[in-house]
Amino acid sequence: MIREDRMPRDGAVRQPKYQHIAAALKAAIESGEYGPGDRLPGENDLMVTYGVARMTARQALGVLRSEGLIEARKGAGVFVREFRLIRRRGIQRLGTDVWGGGRSIWAADTEDREPEVELLGVTEEAAPEAVAGVLGLTEGTAACVRRRRFLLDGKAVMLATSYLDADLVAGTPVTEPDTGPGGIYARLAELGVGPTRFREEVRSRMPSPDEAARLGLGAGTPVVLVCRTAFAADGRVVEVNEMVLDASAYVLEYEFDAP
Amino acid sequence: MIREDRMPRDGAVRQPKYQHIAAALKAAIESGEYGPGDRLPGENDLMVTYGVARMTARQALGVLRSEGLIEARKGAGVFVREFRLIRRRGIQRLGTDVWGGGRSIWAADTEDREPEVELLGVTEEAAPEAVAGVLGLTEGTAACVRRRRFLLDGKAVMLATSYLDADLVAGTPVTEPDTGPGGIYARLAELGVGPTRFREEVRSRMPSPDEAARLGLGAGTPVVLVCRTAFAADGRVVEVNEMVLDASAYVLEYEFDAP
Repeated sequence: MIREDRMPRDGAVRQPKYQHIAAALKAAIESGEYGPGDRLPGENDLMVTYGVARMTARQALGVLRSEGLIEARKGAGVFVREFRLIRRRGIQRLGTDVWGGGRSIWAADTEDREPEVELLGVTEEAAPEAVAGVLGLTEGTAACVRRRRFLLDGKAVMLATSYLDADLVAGTPVTEPDTGPGGIYARLAELGVGPTRFREEVRSRMPSPDEAARLGLGAGTPVVLVCRTAFAADGRVVEVNEMVLDASAYVLEYEFDAP
Repeated sequence: MIREDRMPRDGAVRQPKYQHIAAALKAAIESGEYGPGDRLPGENDLMVTYGVARMTARQALGVLRSEGLIEARKGAGVFVREFRLIRRRGIQRLGTDVWGGGRSIWAADTEDREPEVELLGVTEEAAPEAVAGVLGLTEGTAACVRRRRFLLDGKAVMLATSYLDADLVAGTPVTEPDTGPGGIYARLAELGVGPTRFREEVRSRMPSPDEAARLGLGAGTPVVLVCRTAFAADGRVVEVNEMVLDASAYVLEYEFDAP
C-alpha cells in the first residue's frame, strides 16, 4: 500500500491527479517499499485507493512505464523492473595486463558474472563510409567485420560490431570464429600493431525497432551507443567497434588521473 | 519526395506497412535528402504517396517520433530534429592546465561555442544519503550544494548539482555565486585538496517529467546521467557532481592510453 506520508504535498503548483499518483508510486519504489520484481498496485487497486477513474489510473501507470521503471506482464499485472546493472570499466578493462594475459576483456566487465558471447558472424564486406574513413580503407577495400551479441543471465544486453582492415588480419585467427587467447587485441599485438590508445565516444538515443527486438528492450528503455576506436603506437587506427547497449543493464565507468 | 529506390526491398520477412513507410522516411533522413530542420511529408502526403489510411500514416510518423528523429510543430507539420552535438571530452577537459589556467572547464567542452551557465542556487543542506556516504559526511553534517543549468544557443542542455563538504569550503568563494577564476577545482587546490583523480559513471534512462520540462526535451529523448567523483591526492572525495544531460545534445568522449 502507498502510505499517505509518502504522498507529495500539494504545493503552490497543483499537478494533475495522475501525476500525483505516479509521483507517489515512484517514491514508494525509490524508498524500497516496492523492490525489483515486486508487483505494483494495478489499475483496479489505484481506482479504489485514490478514488479515480480507470483512465486516470492508467495514465499514472503509463508515466512509470514510459520512464522504464515498471513493466506489464500479460495477465499478471504490473511489476517493478529489475535492474542488475553491469559495471563496465572503460579504461582499466582495456589494460594490456587483461588482454595480454589471455583473458577476454569482456569477462572483466562483469566481475563474477560471465557473459555469454554469441558470434553472429565474421564476414568480409565494405564498412560503412564513416568507419572506412576512420580505418583508412580506400574505396573498394574490404573490412573484416565481426558481429557479436552479449547475453547475461540469458538476456541480450549488447550488440557489438568490430571492423578491421581485412588485408591486415588476413590469415590470422581474427577472421576465425575463435580468435584465440586474448582475442583480437592480442592478435593485433602479434602483428606488431597492438592497441596503445583508445577513444570511446558515448551517446544515447531511443532504439530502432530492430535494436529493440534484438536486445529484447522493454518500453521506455533507451540504448547507449559506444564507439571505440583503437590506435596502434604509430597512430594508425586498427579497429573500430560499434556497440549498442541496453541502457537499463549498464553503468559505464571511466576512472582516470587528472591529466 | 521519397525515391522508390530508397525503399527497403520486401525480403523474406514482410513488415507491416507503417514500418515500411517509417523505414523509407528514415533512409531519406539518413541519406541527407531531408536535412536537420527540413519539413517532412505529413499524414496527408503519406496517404497519397503510399495509398494508405490516415492511421497507417500516423503510425509511421509515430515510429520516427518515438525514436526522437522528428518533432511535430503545432500547425506547421513534422520536421527533422536538429542535432548540434556537443562533444564533451571527459578526460582532457579536466586537465590542470585547463582549470589551473583560470578557464572554466565547461568552456573546454564546446570548443568555440560558449555555453551560458545559469546558477540556480548555492545552498547548505543535507546531501542525498548515497552522496553523503561518498563524501564521508556524517549524519547531520551539511553539504555545500551548487545547482546549475547549462544553456547552449538558448536551449537548456544540462543540469548539474555539485556537492562538497560545507565545513571544508566554508568562507571560500565556493559558497559564493561567483567561484572565481578556475572555479571550484582551483579553490579546492588552494585549500590543499585539489582533485588529482576523477571517476565518471555514465548511465542513460528516460527523463522524469520534471527533467523533461527543465531541459525542454522532445518526445523520445532520453537523458544521460553522469556522476563525477573528484578525489584529492590522499584519496579523499572532495566533490560529487551529478549531471543530467539532454542525450540529443551530447557526445561524451573518453580518450586514454592503454593502461
